Amino acid sequence: MNADLRLTALRSLPEVENGADLAQLIVAAAAYEGFTWEPGVVVVAAQKIVSKAEGQVVDLASIDPSPKAREMARKLQKDASLVEVILRESRRVVRSERGVLVVETHHGWVCANAGVDQSNVPGENCATLLPRDPDASAARLLDRLRALDAPASGVVISDTFGRPWRNGLANVAIGVAGISPLEDYRGRRDRQGRLLKGTIVAVADEVAAAAELLMGKAEGVPVVMVAGLRSLGRDGVATDLIRPAAEDLFR
Amino acid sequence: MNADLRLTALRSLPEVENGADLAQLIVAAAAYEGFTWEPGVVVVAAQKIVSKAEGQVVDLASIDPSPKAREMARKLQKDASLVEVILRESRRVVRSERGVLVVETHHGWVCANAGVDQSNVPGENCATLLPRDPDASAARLLDRLRALDAPASGVVISDTFGRPWRNGLANVAIGVAGISPLEDYRGRRDRQGRLLKGTIVAVADEVAAAAELLMGKAEGVPVVMVAGLRSLGRDGVATDLIRPAAEDLFR
Repeated sequence: MNADLRLTALRSLPEVENGADLAQLIVAAAAYEGFTWEPGVVVVAAQKIVSKAEGQVVDLASIDPSPKAREMARKLQKDASLVEVILRESRRVVRSERGVLVVETHHGWVCANAGVDQSNVPGENCATLLPRDPDASAARLLDRLRALDAPASGVVISDTFGRPWRNGLANVAIGVAGISPLEDYRGRRDRQGRLLKGTIVAVADEVAAAAELLMGKAEGVPVVMVAGLRSLGRDGVATDLIRPAAEDLFR
Repeated sequence: MNADLRLTALRSLPEVENGADLAQLIVAAAAYEGFTWEPGVVVVAAQKIVSKAEGQVVDLASIDPSPKAREMARKLQKDASLVEVILRESRRVVRSERGVLVVETHHGWVCANAGVDQSNVPGENCATLLPRDPDASAARLLDRLRALDAPASGVVISDTFGRPWRNGLANVAIGVAGISPLEDYRGRRDRQGRLLKGTIVAVADEVAAAAELLMGKAEGVPVVMVAGLRSLGRDGVATDLIRPAAEDLFR
């Protein structure tokens, strides 16, 4: 009996460098590992490798922190150059206390440190930034996969975010192409025939979370193939997942 | 090539009634559907069926709402009996505005409506409550599965929660047995040998989210089998996922 949903880690991707053709690397790794493309495969790529391929990497040694960044860094006990980079990536600081810097990025994501991350980045003092436009990155990756005859249905670019109220981080989608990030059950009926109200599921976040189970943090599995997703919508972008500030009770 | 992580929906479970032996129903449905138990399977069960099996169902027609519940219901445009039940399930109201009632349950979960839910519940006016102690429910289910020779490694009881900042709901773990809900990467090193800091991943939430992709809301798939999880810790309870109020910047 075949499982309904099947996730496969790509383990043979090389270190990704600025300008790399990520789709080509994925197709080559998939072939090397004997992965069979079937209809409906969604490719989940970690933000880190997309950022590296796009050159979204900064050397913190090259940053001259502003007085504001220095002051904030002192209070948070963080590196001033890192705080400067985070502030440049942000349109608003949501919380800055107890060593935690939660911001709203220029894209609109609310997350710690604007997604600026120093783990798994080559170079003593380097950090990755989020892709400038992760939805565009996802769309380009999907187009290029298809151009290489890899019949992917969608691409999700994932990152690891914290959340209020619950311990631990979980992966979410920051870029989406080819699938709808939200599935809307409103208007459908439950098994008792009662109309379902208010139920919109963030399927792209759930796909990202599922893929993280194979990524780990230390293992270096930056791409996971997901097969067997129920037929999802084809439209939409990850920014659909951003709750407008006016509708958000917690900013 | 076998996928690394394999999720299988159980589709033949009957409607679950008060006092049902959920483990026995799961084992029977798994056998009927040809599911092969392999070492390491984690069983994800939706809160709804666990609550039904435990009789955690209320008839709203039997509830006499307090004046406080009536007033709150009027402002929120909700049913007063429903609000009364939600308040009884809560130790604190976190937000009550714009039609949204976010509370902290007696367990400590911060969620809308204290998890009280009217969908997929038989009976015109009935609603399910969360299990009284979902970790104990998970432990009992795991013990009983093993007693029936189903070699499950763990059980996750999942529910569908909203979250700040992001549109859409996602499934999270509210009960856990046999696996650690959090995976702690602190002290491990990334591929560059740099110490990973502050990275604790909420794997039980990610397992719940992954399983939701097969559950849907209308389809009535309340149990999903997850095979191929990397070796996870064996200890811990879902309440480990509750961020203490003192460490939470968003309550």
